[in-house]
Amino acid sequence: MPPMIIDGKKIAEKIRADVACDVAALKQSRGITPGLAVIIAGDNPASLSYVKSKRKACESAGMYSVEHALKADATETQVLAIIAELNADLRVHGILVQLPLPRHIDESKIIFAINPAKDADGIHPVSLGRLLLGVDGPRPCTPAGIQKLLESTGAPISGSRVVVLGRSNIVGKPVAAMLMQKAKNADATVTVCHSRSRDLPSITRQADILIAAIGSPEFVTASMVKDGAVVIDVGINRVPDGSREKGYRVVGDVKFDEVAPKCKAISPVPGGVGPMTIAMLLHNTVQAAGKTV
Amino acid sequence: MPPMIIDGKKIAEKIRADVACDVAALKQSRGITPGLAVIIAGDNPASLSYVKSKRKACESAGMYSVEHALKADATETQVLAIIAELNADLRVHGILVQLPLPRHIDESKIIFAINPAKDADGIHPVSLGRLLLGVDGPRPCTPAGIQKLLESTGAPISGSRVVVLGRSNIVGKPVAAMLMQKAKNADATVTVCHSRSRDLPSITRQADILIAAIGSPEFVTASMVKDGAVVIDVGINRVPDGSREKGYRVVGDVKFDEVAPKCKAISPVPGGVGPMTIAMLLHNTVQAAGKTV
Repeated sequence: MPPMIIDGKKIAEKIRADVACDVAALKQSRGITPGLAVIIAGDNPASLSYVKSKRKACESAGMYSVEHALKADATETQVLAIIAELNADLRVHGILVQLPLPRHIDESKIIFAINPAKDADGIHPVSLGRLLLGVDGPRPCTPAGIQKLLESTGAPISGSRVVVLGRSNIVGKPVAAMLMQKAKNADATVTVCHSRSRDLPSITRQADILIAAIGSPEFVTASMVKDGAVVIDVGINRVPDGSREKGYRVVGDVKFDEVAPKCKAISPVPGGVGPMTIAMLLHNTVQAAGKTV
Repeated sequence: MPPMIIDGKKIAEKIRADVACDVAALKQSRGITPGLAVIIAGDNPASLSYVKSKRKACESAGMYSVEHALKADATETQVLAIIAELNADLRVHGILVQLPLPRHIDESKIIFAINPAKDADGIHPVSLGRLLLGVDGPRPCTPAGIQKLLESTGAPISGSRVVVLGRSNIVGKPVAAMLMQKAKNADATVTVCHSRSRDLPSITRQADILIAAIGSPEFVTASMVKDGAVVIDVGINRVPDGSREKGYRVVGDVKFDEVAPKCKAISPVPGGVGPMTIAMLLHNTVQAAGKTV
Protein backbone atom coordinates (compact mmCIF):
# COMPACT_ATOMS: atom_id res chain seq x y z
CA MET A 1 0.00 0.00 0.00
CA PRO A 2 1.43 3.41 -0.88
CA PRO A 3 1.36 5.83 2.06
CA MET A 4 -1.41 8.37 2.44
CA ILE A 5 0.11 11.80 1.89
CA ILE A 6 -1.72 14.05 4.33
CA ASP A 7 -2.95 17.08 2.44
CA GLY A 8 -2.65 19.88 4.99
CA LYS A 9 -3.53 22.50 2.44
CA LYS A 10 -6.87 20.90 1.68
CA ILE A 11 -7.71 20.24 5.33
CA ALA A 12 -6.76 23.81 6.23
CA GLU A 13 -8.97 25.14 3.43
CA LYS A 14 -11.91 23.23 4.83
CA ILE A 15 -11.28 24.72 8.29
CA ARG A 16 -10.93 28.19 6.82
CA ALA A 17 -14.22 27.73 4.97
CA ASP A 18 -15.87 26.73 8.27
CA VAL A 19 -14.31 29.79 9.90
CA ALA A 20 -15.70 32.02 7.12
CA CYS A 21 -19.17 30.59 7.80
CA ASP A 22 -18.79 31.26 11.53
CA VAL A 23 -17.65 34.81 10.76
CA ALA A 24 -20.68 35.43 8.57
CA ALA A 25 -22.97 34.02 11.25
CA LEU A 26 -21.44 36.18 14.00
CA LYS A 27 -21.81 39.28 11.83
CA GLN A 28 -25.40 38.55 11.04
CA SER A 29 -26.63 37.33 14.41
CA ARG A 30 -24.70 39.60 16.75
CA GLY A 31 -23.09 42.29 14.62
CA ILE A 32 -19.63 41.10 15.61
CA THR A 33 -16.78 41.07 13.09
CA PRO A 34 -14.02 38.87 14.53
CA GLY A 35 -10.75 40.76 14.53
CA LEU A 36 -7.12 39.66 14.71
CA ALA A 37 -4.22 41.98 15.55
CA VAL A 38 -0.68 40.97 14.67
CA ILE A 39 2.41 42.54 16.18
CA ILE A 40 5.71 42.15 14.42
CA ALA A 41 9.08 43.68 15.23
CA GLY A 42 12.03 43.70 12.86
CA ASP A 43 12.35 42.59 9.26
CA ASN A 44 12.95 38.85 9.41
CA PRO A 45 11.82 37.76 5.90
CA ALA A 46 10.16 34.55 7.10
CA SER A 47 8.24 36.46 9.79
CA LEU A 48 7.14 39.14 7.32
CA SER A 49 5.93 36.45 4.96
CA TYR A 50 3.96 34.66 7.74
CA VAL A 51 2.35 37.93 8.80
CA LYS A 52 1.34 38.68 5.23
CA SER A 53 -0.24 35.22 4.90
CA LYS A 54 -2.12 35.75 8.14
CA ARG A 55 -3.51 39.09 6.99
CA LYS A 56 -4.64 37.62 3.68
CA ALA A 57 -6.24 34.66 5.42
CA CYS A 58 -8.15 36.98 7.76
CA GLU A 59 -9.40 39.07 4.91
CA SER A 60 -10.55 36.13 2.85
CA ALA A 61 -12.49 34.83 5.87
CA GLY A 62 -14.24 38.19 6.23
CA MET A 63 -12.40 39.09 9.43
CA TYR A 64 -11.06 42.41 10.61
CA SER A 65 -7.27 42.46 10.58
CA VAL A 66 -4.80 44.98 11.94
CA GLU A 67 -1.04 44.94 11.92
CA HIS A 68 1.47 46.70 14.15
CA ALA A 69 4.86 46.62 12.46
CA LEU A 70 7.71 47.84 14.64
CA LYS A 71 11.35 48.34 13.85
CA ALA A 72 13.93 45.86 15.11
CA ASP A 73 15.04 48.38 17.74
CA ALA A 74 11.56 48.73 19.23
CA THR A 75 11.63 48.63 23.03
CA GLU A 76 9.84 46.22 25.33
CA THR A 77 7.86 49.17 26.67
CA GLN A 78 6.63 50.02 23.20
CA VAL A 79 5.46 46.48 22.56
CA LEU A 80 3.77 46.32 25.97
CA ALA A 81 1.99 49.62 25.24
CA ILE A 82 0.59 48.20 22.00
CA ILE A 83 -0.58 45.07 23.77
CA ALA A 84 -2.34 47.14 26.43
CA GLU A 85 -4.07 49.08 23.67
CA LEU A 86 -5.14 45.91 21.85
CA ASN A 87 -6.30 44.27 25.09
CA ALA A 88 -8.74 47.18 25.43
CA ASP A 89 -9.71 47.39 21.74
CA LEU A 90 -13.21 45.97 21.29
CA ARG A 91 -12.61 45.34 17.57
CA VAL A 92 -9.77 42.95 18.40
CA HIS A 93 -10.61 39.42 19.62
CA GLY A 94 -7.26 37.81 18.97
CA ILE A 95 -3.73 39.13 19.48
CA LEU A 96 -0.79 37.42 17.89
CA VAL A 97 2.82 38.36 18.53
CA GLN A 98 4.98 37.11 15.69
CA LEU A 99 7.94 35.25 17.16
CA PRO A 100 10.86 35.43 17.40
CA LEU A 101 11.04 38.97 18.78
CA PRO A 102 14.34 40.88 18.68
CA ARG A 103 16.70 39.49 21.30
CA HIS A 104 16.58 42.48 23.62
CA ILE A 105 12.85 41.90 24.22
CA ASP A 106 11.72 39.34 26.80
CA GLU A 107 9.24 37.19 24.87
CA SER A 108 7.64 35.71 28.00
CA LYS A 109 6.92 39.17 29.37
CA ILE A 110 5.23 40.17 26.12
CA ILE A 111 3.16 36.99 25.80
CA PHE A 112 2.11 37.09 29.47
CA ALA A 113 0.81 40.65 28.97
CA ILE A 114 -1.81 39.52 26.45
CA ASN A 115 -5.32 39.25 27.85
CA PRO A 116 -5.76 35.43 27.98
CA ALA A 117 -9.24 35.86 26.47
CA LYS A 118 -7.51 37.25 23.34
CA ASP A 119 -4.73 34.65 23.19
CA ALA A 120 -5.33 33.60 19.58
CA ASP A 121 -2.05 31.73 19.52
CA GLY A 122 -2.92 29.66 22.59
CA ILE A 123 0.53 30.10 24.14
CA HIS A 124 -0.28 32.26 27.17
CA PRO A 125 0.38 30.37 30.43
CA VAL A 126 -3.34 30.43 31.21
CA SER A 127 -4.07 28.71 27.90
CA LEU A 128 -1.32 26.15 28.41
CA GLY A 129 -2.47 25.50 31.96
CA ARG A 130 -6.00 24.92 30.71
CA LEU A 131 -4.62 22.60 28.06
CA LEU A 132 -2.70 20.54 30.62
CA LEU A 133 -5.78 20.40 32.87
CA GLY A 134 -7.95 19.36 29.93
CA VAL A 135 -10.43 22.23 30.29
CA ASP A 136 -11.57 24.31 27.35
CA GLY A 137 -9.60 27.27 26.09
CA PRO A 138 -7.69 28.37 23.01
CA ARG A 139 -5.28 25.62 21.99
CA PRO A 140 -1.84 26.41 20.60
CA CYS A 141 -2.24 26.59 16.82
CA THR A 142 0.38 24.16 15.59
CA PRO A 143 -0.50 21.38 18.07
CA ALA A 144 -4.20 21.87 17.30
CA GLY A 145 -3.38 21.65 13.59
CA ILE A 146 -1.41 18.45 14.16
CA GLN A 147 -4.38 16.92 15.97
CA LYS A 148 -6.63 17.75 13.00
CA LEU A 149 -4.15 16.13 10.60
CA LEU A 150 -4.04 13.00 12.74
CA GLU A 151 -7.83 12.90 12.83
CA SER A 152 -7.91 13.11 9.04
CA THR A 153 -5.91 9.90 8.66
CA GLY A 154 -8.55 7.80 10.37
CA ALA A 155 -5.79 6.03 12.29
CA PRO A 156 -6.69 5.39 15.95
CA ILE A 157 -5.17 7.92 18.32
CA SER A 158 -6.71 6.53 21.51
CA GLY A 159 -4.46 3.86 22.96
CA SER A 160 -1.72 4.48 20.42
CA ARG A 161 1.93 5.11 21.20
CA VAL A 162 2.82 8.69 20.32
CA VAL A 163 6.42 9.84 20.29
CA VAL A 164 7.08 13.58 20.10
CA LEU A 165 10.56 14.63 19.02
CA GLY A 166 11.26 18.05 20.50
CA ARG A 167 10.06 19.92 23.57
CA SER A 168 9.51 23.46 22.37
CA ASN A 169 6.94 25.67 24.08
CA ILE A 170 4.91 26.09 20.91
CA VAL A 171 4.92 22.53 19.57
CA GLY A 172 6.55 19.66 21.48
CA LYS A 173 5.32 20.19 25.03
CA PRO A 174 1.80 21.36 24.18
CA VAL A 175 1.15 18.67 21.55
CA ALA A 176 2.22 16.06 24.10
CA ALA A 177 -0.11 17.58 26.71
CA MET A 178 -2.92 17.60 24.15
CA LEU A 179 -2.61 14.00 23.00
CA MET A 180 -2.31 12.50 26.50
CA GLN A 181 -5.66 13.94 27.62
CA LYS A 182 -8.70 11.77 28.24
CA ALA A 183 -10.48 13.29 25.25
CA LYS A 184 -11.58 12.77 21.67
CA ASN A 185 -8.68 12.45 19.22
CA ALA A 186 -6.34 12.02 22.16
CA ASP A 187 -6.01 9.36 24.91
CA ALA A 188 -2.63 8.29 23.57
CA THR A 189 0.41 6.99 25.47
CA VAL A 190 2.79 9.88 24.86
CA THR A 191 6.59 10.03 25.11
CA VAL A 192 8.52 13.28 24.68
CA CYS A 193 12.09 13.00 23.40
CA HIS A 194 14.71 15.72 23.09
CA SER A 195 18.41 16.47 22.87
CA ARG A 196 19.14 14.56 26.08
CA SER A 197 17.23 11.43 25.11
CA ARG A 198 19.35 8.34 24.72
CA ASP A 199 19.01 5.65 22.08
CA LEU A 200 16.41 7.67 20.20
CA PRO A 201 15.77 5.18 17.35
CA SER A 202 14.72 2.47 19.82
CA ILE A 203 12.11 4.87 21.19
CA THR A 204 10.88 6.30 17.89
CA ARG A 205 10.50 2.79 16.46
CA GLN A 206 7.83 2.14 19.10
CA ALA A 207 5.70 5.00 17.80
CA ASP A 208 2.40 4.38 16.08
CA ILE A 209 2.36 8.15 15.63
CA LEU A 210 5.64 10.04 15.33
CA ILE A 211 5.65 13.83 15.55
CA ALA A 212 8.95 15.40 14.48
CA ALA A 213 9.41 18.94 15.80
CA ILE A 214 13.11 19.40 16.45
CA GLY A 215 14.07 21.81 13.69
CA SER A 216 16.82 19.59 12.30
CA PRO A 217 16.72 18.97 8.53
CA GLU A 218 15.79 15.41 7.59
CA PHE A 219 16.73 14.15 11.04
CA VAL A 220 14.25 11.25 11.01
CA THR A 221 15.44 8.44 8.78
CA ALA A 222 13.73 5.22 7.73
CA SER A 223 15.46 3.13 10.39
CA MET A 224 13.85 5.27 13.09
CA VAL A 225 10.30 4.59 11.95
CA LYS A 226 8.06 1.59 12.52
CA ASP A 227 6.32 0.04 9.52
CA GLY A 228 2.81 1.41 9.23
CA ALA A 229 3.42 4.46 11.42
CA VAL A 230 1.73 7.82 10.96
CA VAL A 231 4.39 10.53 10.71
CA ILE A 232 3.75 14.24 11.18
CA ASP A 233 6.60 16.49 10.10
CA VAL A 234 6.55 19.88 11.81
CA GLY A 235 9.99 21.01 10.60
CA ILE A 236 10.51 23.93 8.25
CA ASN A 237 14.22 24.03 7.48
CA ARG A 238 16.00 25.90 4.71
CA VAL A 239 18.91 23.95 3.25
CA PRO A 240 21.27 25.34 0.60
CA ASP A 241 20.37 24.19 -2.92
CA GLY A 242 22.24 25.71 -5.86
CA SER A 243 19.73 24.26 -8.31
CA ARG A 244 16.95 26.48 -6.95
CA GLU A 245 16.46 30.09 -7.95
CA LYS A 246 16.38 31.18 -4.28
CA GLY A 247 19.53 29.20 -3.52
CA TYR A 248 17.76 27.03 -0.96
CA ARG A 249 14.94 24.57 -0.59
CA VAL A 250 12.66 23.91 2.35
CA VAL A 251 12.78 20.48 3.96
CA GLY A 252 11.15 19.03 7.05
CA ASP A 253 12.58 17.17 10.03
CA VAL A 254 11.86 13.89 8.22
CA LYS A 255 13.78 12.36 5.30
CA PHE A 256 10.57 12.10 3.34
CA ASP A 257 11.69 9.98 0.40
CA GLU A 258 12.97 7.11 2.51
CA VAL A 259 10.47 7.38 5.37
CA ALA A 260 7.26 7.75 3.34
CA PRO A 261 7.27 4.20 1.88
CA LYS A 262 7.21 2.74 5.42
CA CYS A 263 4.30 4.88 6.58
CA LYS A 264 0.59 4.42 6.75
CA ALA A 265 0.31 8.20 6.43
CA ILE A 266 2.77 11.07 6.38
CA SER A 267 2.53 14.85 6.22
CA PRO A 268 4.76 16.52 3.63
CA VAL A 269 6.77 19.73 3.94
CA PRO A 270 5.57 22.10 2.62
CA GLY A 271 1.83 21.49 2.50
CA GLY A 272 1.42 19.52 5.74
CA VAL A 273 1.40 21.18 9.14
CA GLY A 274 2.24 24.67 7.82
CA PRO A 275 -1.16 25.61 6.39
CA MET A 276 -2.91 24.27 9.50
CA THR A 277 -1.30 26.77 11.84
CA ILE A 278 -2.93 29.79 10.19
CA ALA A 279 -6.27 27.98 9.94
CA MET A 280 -6.25 27.26 13.69
CA LEU A 281 -5.26 30.87 14.41
CA LEU A 282 -8.36 32.07 12.59
CA HIS A 283 -10.41 29.42 14.35
CA ASN A 284 -9.19 30.57 17.79
CA THR A 285 -9.92 34.21 16.94
CA VAL A 286 -13.47 33.46 15.86
CA GLN A 287 -14.03 31.33 18.96
CA ALA A 288 -12.82 34.22 21.12
CA ALA A 289 -15.10 36.63 19.26
CA GLY A 290 -18.05 34.34 19.88
CA LYS A 291 -17.35 34.40 23.63
CA THR A 292 -17.52 38.18 23.94
CA VAL A 293 -20.62 39.33 25.80
CA MET B 1 22.67 -4.62 47.00
CA PRO B 2 19.56 -4.02 49.08
CA PRO B 3 17.40 -1.19 47.75
CA MET B 4 17.65 2.29 49.19
CA ILE B 5 14.38 3.02 50.97
CA ILE B 6 13.72 6.68 50.31
CA ASP B 7 12.97 8.36 53.62
CA GLY B 8 10.39 10.99 52.69
CA LYS B 9 9.80 11.87 56.31
CA LYS B 10 13.42 12.80 56.86
CA ILE B 11 13.71 14.71 53.58
CA ALA B 12 10.49 16.56 54.34
CA GLU B 13 11.75 17.47 57.79
CA LYS B 14 14.85 18.99 56.26
CA ILE B 15 12.72 21.08 53.89
CA ARG B 16 10.46 22.15 56.74
CA ALA B 17 13.51 23.19 58.76
CA ASP B 18 14.68 25.29 55.79
CA VAL B 19 11.20 26.77 55.54
CA ALA B 20 11.27 27.67 59.25
CA CYS B 21 14.59 29.48 58.68
CA ASP B 22 13.12 31.40 55.74
CA VAL B 23 10.09 32.31 57.86
CA ALA B 24 12.29 33.64 60.64
CA ALA B 25 14.34 35.63 58.13
CA LEU B 26 11.25 37.17 56.51
CA LYS B 27 9.88 38.16 59.91
CA GLN B 28 13.12 39.76 60.96
CA SER B 29 14.14 41.48 57.73
CA ARG B 30 10.76 42.61 56.41
CA GLY B 31 8.25 42.09 59.19
CA ILE B 32 6.35 39.55 57.09
CA THR B 33 4.82 36.45 58.67
CA PRO B 34 4.02 34.01 55.83
CA GLY B 35 0.40 32.92 56.07
CA LEU B 36 -1.51 29.96 54.68
CA ALA B 37 -5.30 29.76 54.46
CA VAL B 38 -7.01 26.42 54.04
CA ILE B 39 -10.57 25.99 52.86
CA ILE B 40 -12.34 22.73 53.52
CA ALA B 41 -15.95 21.76 52.87
CA GLY B 42 -17.59 18.69 54.31
CA ASP B 43 -16.36 16.12 56.79
CA ASN B 44 -14.35 13.63 54.77
CA PRO B 45 -12.11 12.09 57.49
CA ALA B 46 -9.02 11.91 55.27
CA SER B 47 -9.45 15.56 54.26
CA LEU B 48 -9.94 16.67 57.87
CA SER B 49 -6.81 14.80 58.86
CA TYR B 50 -4.77 16.40 56.04
CA VAL B 51 -5.99 19.86 57.00
CA LYS B 52 -5.03 19.25 60.62
CA SER B 53 -1.53 18.17 59.57
CA LYS B 54 -1.19 21.27 57.42
CA ARG B 55 -2.16 23.57 60.28
CA LYS B 56 0.28 21.90 62.64
CA ALA B 57 3.06 22.08 60.07
CA CYS B 58 2.41 25.81 59.54
CA GLU B 59 2.48 26.48 63.24
CA SER B 60 5.68 24.57 63.83
CA ALA B 61 7.34 26.55 61.02
CA GLY B 62 6.29 29.81 62.67
CA MET B 63 3.73 30.64 59.99
CA TYR B 64 0.31 32.22 60.28
CA SER B 65 -2.44 29.72 59.58
CA VAL B 66 -6.17 30.19 59.12
CA GLU B 67 -8.84 27.66 58.35
CA HIS B 68 -12.27 28.05 56.76
CA ALA B 69 -14.30 24.95 57.48
CA LEU B 70 -17.61 24.80 55.63
CA LYS B 71 -20.39 22.29 55.80
CA ALA B 72 -20.86 19.74 53.03
CA ASP B 73 -23.85 21.70 51.75
CA ALA B 74 -21.88 24.93 51.33
CA THR B 75 -22.61 26.63 48.02
CA GLU B 76 -20.18 27.52 45.26
CA THR B 77 -20.99 31.18 45.92
CA GLN B 78 -19.98 30.83 49.55
CA VAL B 79 -16.65 29.26 48.64
CA LEU B 80 -16.01 31.92 45.99
CA ALA B 81 -16.77 34.65 48.54
CA ILE B 82 -14.19 33.23 50.93
CA ILE B 83 -11.63 33.04 48.16
CA ALA B 84 -12.26 36.66 47.21
CA GLU B 85 -11.76 37.63 50.84
CA LEU B 86 -8.52 35.63 51.12
CA ASN B 87 -7.24 37.00 47.79
CA ALA B 88 -7.48 40.46 49.37
CA ASP B 89 -6.20 39.49 52.82
CA LEU B 90 -2.64 40.77 53.25
CA ARG B 91 -1.91 38.24 56.00
CA VAL B 92 -2.53 35.37 53.61
CA HIS B 93 0.17 34.48 51.06
CA GLY B 94 -1.02 31.02 50.17
CA ILE B 95 -4.54 29.67 49.66
CA LEU B 96 -5.21 25.97 49.61
CA VAL B 97 -8.56 24.41 48.78
CA GLN B 98 -8.72 20.91 50.19
CA LEU B 99 -9.91 18.57 47.45
CA PRO B 100 -12.17 16.85 46.73
CA LEU B 101 -14.93 19.43 47.20
CA PRO B 102 -18.54 18.28 47.53
CA ARG B 103 -19.84 17.16 44.15
CA HIS B 104 -22.21 20.07 43.58
CA ILE B 105 -19.26 22.50 43.54
CA ASP B 106 -17.25 23.01 40.35
CA GLU B 107 -13.65 22.50 41.49
CA SER B 108 -12.15 24.19 38.43
CA LYS B 109 -14.21 27.31 39.04
CA ILE B 110 -13.00 27.47 42.64
CA ILE B 111 -9.33 26.85 41.84
CA PHE B 112 -9.39 29.35 38.94
CA ALA B 113 -10.72 32.04 41.33
CA ILE B 114 -7.58 31.92 43.48
CA ASN B 115 -5.16 34.77 42.86
CA PRO B 116 -2.33 32.94 41.02
CA ALA B 117 0.19 34.77 43.22
CA LYS B 118 -1.35 32.94 46.21
CA ASP B 119 -1.59 29.53 44.55
CA ALA B 120 0.26 27.60 47.27
CA ASP B 121 -0.83 24.31 45.76
CA GLY B 122 0.55 25.15 42.31
CA ILE B 123 -2.52 23.85 40.51
CA HIS B 124 -3.99 27.08 39.12
CA PRO B 125 -3.88 27.09 35.29
CA VAL B 126 -1.40 29.98 35.40
CA SER B 127 0.95 27.89 37.56
CA LEU B 128 0.56 24.83 35.35
CA GLY B 129 1.11 26.91 32.23
CA ARG B 130 4.29 28.34 33.74
CA LEU B 131 5.37 24.82 34.63
CA LEU B 132 4.83 23.58 31.06
CA LEU B 133 6.70 26.62 29.70
CA GLY B 134 9.52 26.06 32.15
CA VAL B 135 9.33 29.54 33.68
CA ASP B 136 9.38 30.09 37.44
CA GLY B 137 6.24 29.90 39.54
CA PRO B 138 4.75 27.79 42.31
CA ARG B 139 5.03 24.12 41.40
CA PRO B 140 2.33 21.61 42.27
CA CYS B 141 3.25 20.19 45.67
CA THR B 142 3.22 16.45 45.05
CA PRO B 143 5.20 16.62 41.78
CA ALA B 144 7.69 18.99 43.42
CA GLY B 145 8.00 16.56 46.32
CA ILE B 146 8.59 13.68 43.92
CA GLN B 147 11.38 15.63 42.24
CA LYS B 148 13.04 16.19 45.62
CA LEU B 149 12.81 12.48 46.43
CA LEU B 150 14.39 11.60 43.08
CA GLU B 151 17.16 14.10 43.71
CA SER B 152 17.83 12.50 47.07
CA THR B 153 18.60 9.12 45.49
CA GLY B 154 21.57 10.48 43.54
CA ALA B 155 20.36 8.53 40.50
CA PRO B 156 20.70 10.51 37.26
CA ILE B 157 17.45 12.09 36.11
CA SER B 158 18.84 13.83 33.03
CA GLY B 159 18.72 11.47 30.06
CA SER B 160 16.84 8.80 32.00
CA ARG B 161 13.64 7.10 30.89
CA VAL B 162 10.79 8.16 33.18
CA VAL B 163 7.43 6.42 33.02
CA VAL B 164 4.52 8.05 34.83
CA LEU B 165 1.52 5.83 35.57
CA GLY B 166 -1.53 8.05 35.77
CA ARG B 167 -2.52 11.38 34.27
CA SER B 168 -4.24 13.24 37.07
CA ASN B 169 -4.20 17.01 37.17
CA ILE B 170 -2.39 17.11 40.49
CA VAL B 171 0.23 14.41 39.96
CA GLY B 172 0.59 12.59 36.65
CA LYS B 173 0.41 15.37 34.09
CA PRO B 174 2.34 17.99 36.07
CA VAL B 175 5.12 15.61 37.19
CA ALA B 176 5.57 14.61 33.54
CA ALA B 177 5.71 18.27 32.50
CA MET B 178 8.23 18.94 35.26
CA LEU B 179 10.62 16.10 34.47
CA MET B 180 10.70 16.71 30.69
CA GLN B 181 11.95 20.30 31.10
CA LYS B 182 15.45 21.34 30.16
CA ALA B 183 16.32 21.99 33.80
CA LYS B 184 18.17 20.71 36.82
CA ASN B 185 16.78 17.45 38.20
CA ALA B 186 14.80 17.03 35.00
CA ASP B 187 15.79 16.60 31.33
CA ALA B 188 14.33 13.09 31.28
CA THR B 189 12.62 11.24 28.44
CA VAL B 190 9.11 11.03 29.85
CA THR B 191 6.22 8.72 28.96
CA VAL B 192 2.76 9.10 30.47
CA CYS B 193 0.63 5.95 30.73
CA HIS B 194 -3.01 5.65 31.75
CA SER B 195 -6.13 3.52 31.56
CA ARG B 196 -6.02 3.46 27.76
CA SER B 197 -2.38 2.46 27.48
CA ARG B 198 -1.77 -0.92 25.92
CA ASP B 199 0.80 -3.49 26.97
CA LEU B 200 1.70 -1.51 30.06
CA PRO B 201 4.40 -3.86 31.45
CA SER B 202 6.45 -3.54 28.25
CA ILE B 203 6.47 0.22 28.75
CA THR B 204 7.06 0.29 32.50
CA ARG B 205 9.94 -2.17 32.14
CA GLN B 206 11.78 0.49 30.11
CA ALA B 207 11.66 2.92 33.00
CA ASP B 208 14.80 3.95 34.85
CA ILE B 209 12.42 5.92 37.03
CA LEU B 210 8.86 4.70 37.53
CA ILE B 211 6.29 6.98 39.13
CA ALA B 212 3.09 5.19 40.14
CA ALA B 213 0.15 7.54 40.58
CA ILE B 214 -2.96 5.69 39.51
CA GLY B 215 -4.69 5.11 42.81
CA SER B 216 -4.91 1.35 42.41
CA PRO B 217 -3.69 -0.73 45.38
CA GLU B 218 -0.45 -2.63 44.67
CA PHE B 219 -0.98 -2.33 40.92
CA VAL B 220 2.73 -2.36 40.08
CA THR B 221 4.19 -5.84 40.40
CA ALA B 222 7.77 -7.07 40.12
CA SER B 223 7.38 -8.15 36.49
CA MET B 224 6.57 -4.56 35.52
CA VAL B 225 9.81 -3.15 36.88
CA LYS B 226 13.30 -3.12 35.41
CA ASP B 227 16.19 -4.27 37.60
CA GLY B 228 17.85 -1.28 39.20
CA ALA B 229 14.95 1.11 38.67
CA VAL B 230 14.03 3.94 40.99
CA VAL B 231 10.35 3.61 41.97
CA ILE B 232 8.26 6.41 43.45
CA ASP B 233 4.94 5.30 44.88
CA VAL B 234 2.37 8.10 45.03
CA GLY B 235 -0.60 5.90 45.91
CA ILE B 236 -2.45 6.12 49.20
CA ASN B 237 -5.03 3.36 49.17
CA ARG B 238 -7.00 1.94 52.07
CA VAL B 239 -7.50 -1.80 51.83
CA PRO B 240 -9.58 -3.83 54.30
CA ASP B 241 -7.47 -5.55 56.93
CA GLY B 242 -9.21 -7.31 59.80
CA SER B 243 -5.96 -7.65 61.73
CA ARG B 244 -5.71 -3.87 62.15
CA GLU B 245 -7.54 -1.95 64.80
CA LYS B 246 -8.97 0.47 62.22
CA GLY B 247 -10.08 -2.41 60.00
CA TYR B 248 -7.89 -1.27 57.12
CA ARG B 249 -4.30 -0.64 56.21
CA VAL B 250 -2.81 1.88 53.83
CA VAL B 251 -0.95 0.59 50.79
CA GLY B 252 0.56 2.30 47.78
CA ASP B 253 0.20 1.67 44.07
CA VAL B 254 3.25 -0.59 44.20
CA LYS B 255 3.47 -4.13 45.57
CA PHE B 256 6.34 -3.07 47.80
CA ASP B 257 7.54 -6.44 49.07
CA GLU B 258 8.10 -7.95 45.65
CA VAL B 259 9.16 -4.78 43.81
CA ALA B 260 11.62 -3.39 46.37
CA PRO B 261 14.27 -6.14 45.94
CA LYS B 262 14.58 -5.26 42.23
CA CYS B 263 15.01 -1.54 42.83
CA LYS B 264 17.95 0.74 43.22
CA ALA B 265 15.71 2.94 45.33
CA ILE B 266 12.03 2.95 46.25
CA SER B 267 9.74 5.21 48.23
CA PRO B 268 7.54 3.47 50.80
CA VAL B 269 3.89 4.12 51.67
CA PRO B 270 3.46 5.67 54.14
CA GLY B 271 6.58 7.74 54.70
CA GLY B 272 7.53 8.41 51.09
CA VAL B 273 5.76 11.00 48.96
CA GLY B 274 3.11 11.83 51.57
CA PRO B 275 5.22 13.95 53.94
CA MET B 276 6.75 15.82 50.98
CA THR B 277 3.46 17.31 49.83
CA ILE B 278 2.96 19.34 53.00
CA ALA B 279 6.61 20.40 53.03
CA MET B 280 6.32 21.75 49.48
CA LEU B 281 3.07 23.51 50.38
CA LEU B 282 4.86 25.41 53.14
CA HIS B 283 7.75 26.08 50.78
CA ASN B 284 5.42 27.57 48.14
CA THR B 285 3.70 29.74 50.73
CA VAL B 286 6.95 31.17 52.02
CA GLN B 287 8.16 31.79 48.46
CA ALA B 288 4.93 33.67 47.74
CA ALA B 289 5.33 35.70 50.93
CA GLY B 290 8.86 36.63 49.90
CA LYS B 291 7.58 37.99 46.58
CA THR B 292 5.12 40.42 48.14
CA VAL B 293 6.21 44.02 47.70
